[in-house]
This record gives sequence, C-alpha cells and structure tokens, in this order.
Amino acid sequence: MTENLFIQFASTGVQSLTPYQPGKPIEELEREYGVENAIKLASNENSLGPSPLALKAMDYILKGVSRYPDGSGFLLKSALSSHLGVNPEYITLGNGSSDLLDFIARIFISESYEVLYSQYCFALYPLLTKIQSAQGREIPAKNFGHDLTAMAAAISDRTRLIYIANPNNPTGTWLSHNELESFLDSIPKHVFVVLDEAYYEYVDEENYPRSINWLNRYHNLLITRTFSKVYGLAGLRIGYGLSHPDLADLMNRVRPPFNVNNLALAAALTGLEDQEHIQRSLKVNREGMKQLVEAFTQLGLAYIPSVGNFITVDMGRPARVVYESLLRKGVIVRPIANYGLPNHLRITVGTREENTFFIQSVRQVLEAI
Amino acid sequence: MTENLFIQFASTGVQSLTPYQPGKPIEELEREYGVENAIKLASNENSLGPSPLALKAMDYILKGVSRYPDGSGFLLKSALSSHLGVNPEYITLGNGSSDLLDFIARIFISESYEVLYSQYCFALYPLLTKIQSAQGREIPAKNFGHDLTAMAAAISDRTRLIYIANPNNPTGTWLSHNELESFLDSIPKHVFVVLDEAYYEYVDEENYPRSINWLNRYHNLLITRTFSKVYGLAGLRIGYGLSHPDLADLMNRVRPPFNVNNLALAAALTGLEDQEHIQRSLKVNREGMKQLVEAFTQLGLAYIPSVGNFITVDMGRPARVVYESLLRKGVIVRPIANYGLPNHLRITVGTREENTFFIQSVRQVLEAI
Repeated sequence: MTENLFIQFASTGVQSLTPYQPGKPIEELEREYGVENAIKLASNENSLGPSPLALKAMDYILKGVSRYPDGSGFLLKSALSSHLGVNPEYITLGNGSSDLLDFIARIFISESYEVLYSQYCFALYPLLTKIQSAQGREIPAKNFGHDLTAMAAAISDRTRLIYIANPNNPTGTWLSHNELESFLDSIPKHVFVVLDEAYYEYVDEENYPRSINWLNRYHNLLITRTFSKVYGLAGLRIGYGLSHPDLADLMNRVRPPFNVNNLALAAALTGLEDQEHIQRSLKVNREGMKQLVEAFTQLGLAYIPSVGNFITVDMGRPARVVYESLLRKGVIVRPIANYGLPNHLRITVGTREENTFFIQSVRQVLEAI
Repeated sequence: MTENLFIQFASTGVQSLTPYQPGKPIEELEREYGVENAIKLASNENSLGPSPLALKAMDYILKGVSRYPDGSGFLLKSALSSHLGVNPEYITLGNGSSDLLDFIARIFISESYEVLYSQYCFALYPLLTKIQSAQGREIPAKNFGHDLTAMAAAISDRTRLIYIANPNNPTGTWLSHNELESFLDSIPKHVFVVLDEAYYEYVDEENYPRSINWLNRYHNLLITRTFSKVYGLAGLRIGYGLSHPDLADLMNRVRPPFNVNNLALAAALTGLEDQEHIQRSLKVNREGMKQLVEAFTQLGLAYIPSVGNFITVDMGRPARVVYESLLRKGVIVRPIANYGLPNHLRITVGTREENTFFIQSVRQVLEAI
C-alpha cells in the first residue's frame, strides 16, 4: 500500500490511527455470502427492537424530518430529568453515547496529556485518545476487568482523563459501588473520570453502583448512557451524559448544534415512557443468558461471566475460523482479536429462537473442525 | 455569572468558545409565545419537506432501528457514486455536512495553525477553529461575499485550512468557476480548502463552478454537500464530503464508526432517486424568491441578491425588534446580529402561502413601528 498523500500534514495522533471495526451488518452478510434470514448477535443490540410506542412516535414525527431538530433537546432532557431525578443542566445529549466520550476528550486532552483505560476496554477509548494526539496508557486487566488499584497508581501529573466501562464491553465484567467509590475518592481534581454505563439497565446486582448519587460529590465525573442497547435504538444514534452542570456546559460548547436527529429525540422520549418494554427486554435477556451459559457448559467452552446483554466465550482455538463458519450459516457474532482476545467470540444474547439457532450452529461448526 | 469550575483545565480553544445559536424551533415558539400554526423561515429548510418516496423508505426501515447502521454506508455511497460520477472512495458520509467541516479540522488543525474564513461566513467555521485551539483569521468581505484576492494574500506558513461557502450562508453571494479556479491554482499544497456547497442545487447560474471536475486536479480540496437543504432531511442529519481518496481515508479515520443513523441512510438513498421532487422544490424556490424580492422592493427594503433558498434583507433599523414582533405573529425568521449584521434578517424562501403570510406580517410590523 502506498503512503497516504496527506499523512505528513495530519496531527501525530491521526497519523497513528486505524479505524474502528464495527460488527458486520446483516445486509452485508447476505450480500457477500448469499445467505438468507441471517441473524446478528454481534453488536449487543436489543433483539426485541424498540418499544412499539417509540415506533409509533417516529412514524408521527416522520413528516417533520425536513426541519432541523431542536438543538437543545428540551423535551427529552425534561423527561430524562424526571426519570432519573437529576436537574436538566446535568444532561448533555449525544449522537450515541460515543459522542460524549468524544466531547470530553476534545475539551481536556491534547498532545501533552495522558489518558488511562483498561486492557480489554471498549475500542473507542484508545481511538479517541489518538485523534486528540494524546498519550494512551492501557492498564493490565484483572480477571478480564478493571484493576482499579493499578489504574489509581498509574495516575501522573500528565493524566487528565480516565475511561471506565461498567459493565465492561467486551468482557461483561463489573465494578461494585464500594470499589468505584474508593477509586473516585482517590482521584485528583485535575483528572476527569468517564464512567461508561451503556449496559447499566441490564445489571441485576445489589452492589452495582448508584452512580447518579455521586454527581454532587465528584465534580470530575461524567456518566454516559445510551438508548442503543436496552432501548433498542442503536440505528438512530442517541445517548446522554450526566455530570456537574459546569462540565455539562463545556460539553455543550463542543457539541455540534444538531448532533442528535429529531427521530432519535422522539423515539427516546417515547421509549423512556414505555418501561414495560424495558422489563420485557430484561426478562428475555436473563432467560437468554441462562440458555447460552448452559450451552457453553455442555459444549465445554469457558466463558467470562457477564452482567450485560452479551457474553464472551473462549473457543479454545483461533476464533476467526469459527466466526467465518458461523457467517456461512447465517449467524453474525463478534470476533474480538482486535481486543487482544483472538480465541474469544462475543455473543449478544438474542431471543430464545435466535439463541437456539446460534447454539445449533456453533455445535455443528465445532463438530466439523 | 460565576466562572465555570473546570475552565482552567479546558483547552485554550474551548475556553474561548461560545455555542452556536440555532434558529428557533416551531415547537419552542408555540410553547413560549402561545402562538398556533406558526411558520418557520429561519433555517433554510425545504418547505416542501422530503420526497414522499423517502418518507416511505423510512417507514419501511423503522422496524430496523434497533440495529446499528451500516458504518460504511455502502448503499448510499454507491448511489452517490453513480449520481455524481465519482468513485465511492472519494466520498465520506457525515452526520450533516457539519461533520465533514469538523473532521478536516480535527485532522490538520491544532494550536500552532491558522484557519482562514471570510467575514459573514457560516458560524461553524470559527467555532470549529476554536474547538481545535487554532488561530482563526476572518478576511473582510467584498460586497457581502468572499474576497478571494485578500484570502489568497493572507495565506502564511501557518495556514493549514481555508473554509469557503459557495453560495455563502447567510449572505447568499456566490463565486464563479473562473474566480475559484484561479484561487485554487494559487494555494500551496500544505493548505487544505473546504468548499462548502450546502446550497449548490439551488444555484441557477451558468458560471457556477463544476467543482467535482476539480477533484483530480486539486488534491487539497474537500467539497461538502448536504441532504438538509433541497433534499428536505435536515432533521435526520446527513451530508457528504468529496475529496481525493487519500483525504477521504484520513476523514474516515476520525469519523465516528456510526456517525450517520440508518433512517438518514435510507431516506438519502431514496431522496436521491426522486429527482422530480428536487425539480419541484427548485421551482417553488425560484417562484418564492421572486415573490420575496418583489415584496422587499415594494416595501423599500434593501436586500442582498441571493442564489440560495434564503435571502438576507436590511430592515433599516435594529432587526431584533422586527424579529420579536414577527415571532408574536407566528413567523420565525433568522436574526443575524451574531454575524455582524444587526440590521439584517435572513429569510428562508417558503411555499407561496408561507411567503405571503410572512410578507403580510412584516408589512404590519413595519407599519406599527
């Protein structure tokens, strides 16, 4: 490959970038492999889709798509405010929660600063660090999750930002209220902590952090959440950040004026009202997780216990081959070699039928190897 | 107002930022002023809305919103490729064309560089320059448009980026093929030129640039276009950039993996196919522009001749008062004091009925002053 013509003019960070690898879309699989009725368990989406009420709301709003969205997100922020019990000034809306992860980097991070994140962390953290030409430091994981002691010890004068996902994607591990609280207590004021809670609705653990209570205590904390997972709106791109109003003010300064589209605003608003759909989705996830774990045990495959809507399983061999064979059968899962886990696959929990089809397929693939 | 708690930790650029001021949404006007059936001629949207076919396509795609969009935008890039006669590798998709304006800044611009733009330019250019902590240089306008001679003369060793809008928003002025070609000929290779053509479909001038022909000649050129204007999809957020593939490669490195939502992808694809709707919209715009110009002449109001879907008119007094009075009558137009034009209002060309209502309202307001 010849060198990019303009690379010499690009920032040092951009020069070292390689793009994010998304999960394969269903249409792409069907186009490339000629498979029909493929299922996708690769991107931790909600197999039940969004609330039917949200679909109806979007249908209503469709006629208004020629108008710019309300850049302030007034209605959705009001609804989130009552739903979560936080003041609207604490909220920043994003084109997916990835937008928020980006805004905080743009505000605070440049060439002279360090960003901390864990081994096996979400791929966007190092990517955003590079875009800002900052120095990323990956802290070795403990049992596939965050080693908070090591992370705290790694903080230096140059550290300005720490990304933590709870639960962690792609490993599904989680941190307790007390663990995280001690960690936050130890963080100097010039260091900002992003607590990425994209999967928090799925967690059914008593000691999972009640992180919103921390917002008035830790002013350097940004909590990020999304409508892409249990709310079933990944395709529309909408997420939000919760933080001290002064941090939200800075986030809103770098936020593009119309970052969130008007269908996403309408669907999120209605989705929030339909908590029954969320409960149905959580039930399907609990049952599906049980189904997958039992199957892995039967198949003799080691997995990382997960509190999310996905589970990461060790295929005991380079997982690429299994991934390719599953594609041919019309099942999309997620290889995570790029996360340093070449033998693992990340499986999104699907509906009972999807899980059954996946389990059958993986059994056939393993027998044929 | 007390100082922001975190401002000392923010980049120098972010410290100096003030947020973009969007046009007032119709719902906000109705909520705040208790007006009903308000019309909005403030944000240069298409009053005809999107193609009915695009609405149908979105309706079909709604059931798929729980899936992440195709991050590569394969289908839309293929369609744009045939429609424009450029190779797909020249195309970068954005969450609105503002995304593209941002990507190029992120790639090339930091504290040590200068960015050039014209007086009365689109507000995002200086804003994005500040986010990157770069030095913005505003070049005085000539007849409310770009003074290309002065811009070329202002290029220094530190200049890395120039933003040019053609037609210009908010003034509606335009640059000819020969003018821009001579300018591009004079630009050193280390300087990148963004040619923002958000309104290009509206221009009905023989000497308007055929800019796509320049892509193989000026490798430092990025053309940006949008589906927010004549395609009527402002609320969905979708635009695209055209550039040398090496520049597109860098753009795609900083592009967030799912920046464009799947409804926008579907609607843009279908909108592109329905060129009849575009022709209808252009006809309504031509007739509406004539209607507005005639009314301004009758009212004795000076206006800046415009080739876009909007026109900027001198109210002969601080325009804020007129703007407020129009709001009370249920008409939203755009005050542009923040562009250094405190006596002007920018009016989007509406349907015949909208224009008539606006003209009646402005006449009443002026008579009452």
